[in-house]
Parts: sequence; structure tokens; C-alpha cells
Amino acid sequence: MTDTLSATEQLSSSAAWTYLRESPVGRLAVVMGGEPEIFPVNHAVDHGTIVFRTAAGTKLAGATGRAVAYEVDGITPDLTTAWSVVVKGYAREVSRLHESLDSMELPLFPWHGGAKPHIVRIEPESVSGRRFTIVPVPQGHEPRHASDE
Amino acid sequence: MTDTLSATEQLSSSAAWTYLRESPVGRLAVVMGGEPEIFPVNHAVDHGTIVFRTAAGTKLAGATGRAVAYEVDGITPDLTTAWSVVVKGYAREVSRLHESLDSMELPLFPWHGGAKPHIVRIEPESVSGRRFTIVPVPQGHEPRHASDE
Repeated sequence: MTDTLSATEQLSSSAAWTYLRESPVGRLAVVMGGEPEIFPVNHAVDHGTIVFRTAAGTKLAGATGRAVAYEVDGITPDLTTAWSVVVKGYAREVSRLHESLDSMELPLFPWHGGAKPHIVRIEPESVSGRRFTIVPVPQGHEPRHASDE
Repeated sequence: MTDTLSATEQLSSSAAWTYLRESPVGRLAVVMGGEPEIFPVNHAVDHGTIVFRTAAGTKLAGATGRAVAYEVDGITPDLTTAWSVVVKGYAREVSRLHESLDSMELPLFPWHGGAKPHIVRIEPESVSGRRFTIVPVPQGHEPRHASDE
């Protein structure tokens, strides 16, 4: 039986950044008109910041110049441990030419090929991470996993 | 070469709900003090709503009685297709006894064993989903995948 007190571990900053670097997909939360919006994003880590490409639209308008929260998570291959890292900070569009070119060379893993001419950078104010021990699911309550349709 | 115009497909409502039912983990975005917060959540689908357990705290306070956004995503096993579903709606704590008991029997897959006596239900106002063709990454720009440390 898992000890519930030790089941959640706070990650060190370096462990949190390792997960951010190694995970190509996260979710961006922004506030639009007082309500939350959430978008999946392909990101890269660049000099202690999070950068991603986007098209003009809600995601860009909601992120730039504003407080954002960005989350990545995952489950280890042996399914015993899950982890989550949340970055909070301010987002701005990358506009200076040399900075833009630097970021364009980052390995931003694209989920789709639509034009995404804008690059947004999140400057972190805080980075926090947790690692969880996955509690065995009672028999008959196994989670189902996503499958291709 | 992927055609960029056809690379993103809007999901039908039933396909979106299938992904929601088959994915045990999502991310809850809420607004607290005008800023976005994001939390990983183990959810279940119950009669066209999203339910999850939580402890008292920021997640509960930020969600109940408010507009929330909830997102699940994934990549198919063959790594050719990614998908994302976003539910927007209002969250409330499940408090009526019979409703609570119903929800307690849902297969809510726990990431950790800490006490989570509260159950929150998201009543959807909209459910939208997209499926993306994953664009091959140029050589030398392969994404790295998360690994256990």
C-alpha cells in the first residue's frame, strides 16, 4: 500500500526543467474575457524560457502581454509514476529579428502543418513540479486507455 | 507531403466524447484572481458531464461555481495523429448525497492517494475536438520524448 504522505514529491527546479525539455507537448492556459481558455501547444525550451509557434488568433491574442500558465505532464513507461510541471509567467511575442531567428531553429515539434508565423515566449515567474505515485486501481475499475478509432 | 489544408480535422461530438471517455487524465484551466491556473486531473465521464475528485484547495475554490476549460489530448500509437478535445462549461461541487454516491463509483483513476473528499462536476456548454496529422520533423530536429529519470 502506498504511503499517502510520501506519494507526492515536489520536483527540484532542475528536474522540472528536464521534464519540460523532454516533453514536446504542453497545454497553455490563458484568460480571455474573464474566462479560461486552454490550448495544446508544441513547445521548446530556450534559455530558461518556453517558446512556441502559433498562428494569429485566440491563442496569440490571449497569451501575449498577459499572465499565462503552461503545463506538461506524463506517465513513466512502467506506469508507476506520473509527473506534472506548471510554469507561470508572462508571454510576449518574439519580434526582434535575431531573437526570432534563434527561436525558429528550435526543434518545435509540429502537430499540424498550418502556417504559424508567430513565435511566443513565456518568461517564467515560477516553475513547479510534482511527481506522483500512481495508486493501483481497484479491480473492475481499471482505467481505459485512449485508442485510435 | 501532408496537405496543410486537410491536416486538421474537426471531430464530431461523438468522437470527442469517445476520447474523453477513454482518456483518464486531462487538464483543468480556471481563473483565480484574474490569472490562469492549470491542474492535471483524473476525470471520468458521467452522463455527459466530466467529474473528478479533489481535495479542498485552489483547484476546488477555482473551479466551483465558475467557468472552466478542460482539455484532454493524446497521440495515436503509430505517432501519425494527435488529437485534442476541449470542454468548456461550469463546474460545481457534487453535494447531493445520491449524486455523490453515484460519482464515487466512477472509475476515477488516481494519480496519488491523498485524501480527495470533494467531487466536482463540469456541465459542458461546449465540447470541441480536433485531430491533427503529425508533420514529419526535419532530420536533426527530432523531438525528444520524456523518459523516467
